[in-house]
Amino acid sequence: MEKNKQAEPPEWAWEFHGHRCPFMPIGYLMGMIGLRELGMERVKDHGAIVLSEMGVGHPQTCMMDGAMVATGCTYGKLMMERLNYGKVAFILHAPGKGTVRIYLRSEFQDELGKEEFFAYRKRGVEPSDIPAEVTERAVRMVLETPEDRMFKIERLADFAFSRPKGSFAKVKCSRCGEYIFERYARSVDGKPVCIPCSGYTETRMDILKGMQ
Amino acid sequence: MEKNKQAEPPEWAWEFHGHRCPFMPIGYLMGMIGLRELGMERVKDHGAIVLSEMGVGHPQTCMMDGAMVATGCTYGKLMMERLNYGKVAFILHAPGKGTVRIYLRSEFQDELGKEEFFAYRKRGVEPSDIPAEVTERAVRMVLETPEDRMFKIERLADFAFSRPKGSFAKVKCSRCGEYIFERYARSVDGKPVCIPCSGYTETRMDILKGMQ
Repeated sequence: MEKNKQAEPPEWAWEFHGHRCPFMPIGYLMGMIGLRELGMERVKDHGAIVLSEMGVGHPQTCMMDGAMVATGCTYGKLMMERLNYGKVAFILHAPGKGTVRIYLRSEFQDELGKEEFFAYRKRGVEPSDIPAEVTERAVRMVLETPEDRMFKIERLADFAFSRPKGSFAKVKCSRCGEYIFERYARSVDGKPVCIPCSGYTETRMDILKGMQ
Repeated sequence: MEKNKQAEPPEWAWEFHGHRCPFMPIGYLMGMIGLRELGMERVKDHGAIVLSEMGVGHPQTCMMDGAMVATGCTYGKLMMERLNYGKVAFILHAPGKGTVRIYLRSEFQDELGKEEFFAYRKRGVEPSDIPAEVTERAVRMVLETPEDRMFKIERLADFAFSRPKGSFAKVKCSRCGEYIFERYARSVDGKPVCIPCSGYTETRMDILKGMQ
């Protein structure tokens, strides 16, 4: 892939994502470039992970859907995770192949930000309600700008990432009777219970506001 | 949709997911049932969220990819999140339309667990390396078992969920010069910096073991 012009997301990528917008293809390009940099194919199973630097409470996270489509590092396979740094960047890490970080250049963020598409978004208009010609102009800009004007690409040496060791072990919650993968079982009155039945508050839940 | 037999994932769902397995279609069925229960179409933009009760360090999370495909509630749009309860269940919440929780019945988990597919998985064989006839037997079982034998479906009343208010505001990190969405900017020596440059440890990072 010499320029990113050849790397247009497949039609089903748009169907998966649900709407047309410029950031899904940005993520797709980042994914394709990442694979090329590490000399690898799209991942079928669990051979690589994408650590997105995006967070919540800001736009442009659509990038992550494009990255999943390109790399095969899907959230469902636990191969995509957010680092919550609030940056339009990701790290692609493939054990034995290396680690690459790709950042959407600040200059390109400024340039793209002038597109009328974002004026609509700032007024709260949903992407699928924005006039098609407005959206397509932003999409074409993404797909037609030379790669080196868009992305900063860097190798990360000595990068390590691992998940907790997986286990099939499960137990039944003594209250609701549902199965729990054992690492998430809690104990109340000496009996195994699931987190909702336990009533214990998990600090990790602070990312989810207003849960009941 | 009377039975789930009609609801076979589209071909691109398998392409997105990367391999064939029984849990992607389970999530797809859960998603289709959820949409039907709330009387809604697949989400184009941000009209609903899926809160998966899956966690990490256990199998069967592939369910989440199928749920994204069916509902349009994708991780990239911030419309899919994990609750980390370690259960094969999800909550589909659509403001104004209601909330439904779907759990894969314990009896069906036991029944499906006897499939040879899982004997391979427990030996650490990746799904794409499992003989096709073994995988397809498990997939057919998922697609051909009547819905009410597979799923427990319940409405959750008075369920509330909201994200922090979104903002386009961003600042440049005074050290690396990269843009940060402002809510993630930190302060060092009175200047805005990004989280990696700040050196501050985020407690949320405890889900990511071994990061450097």
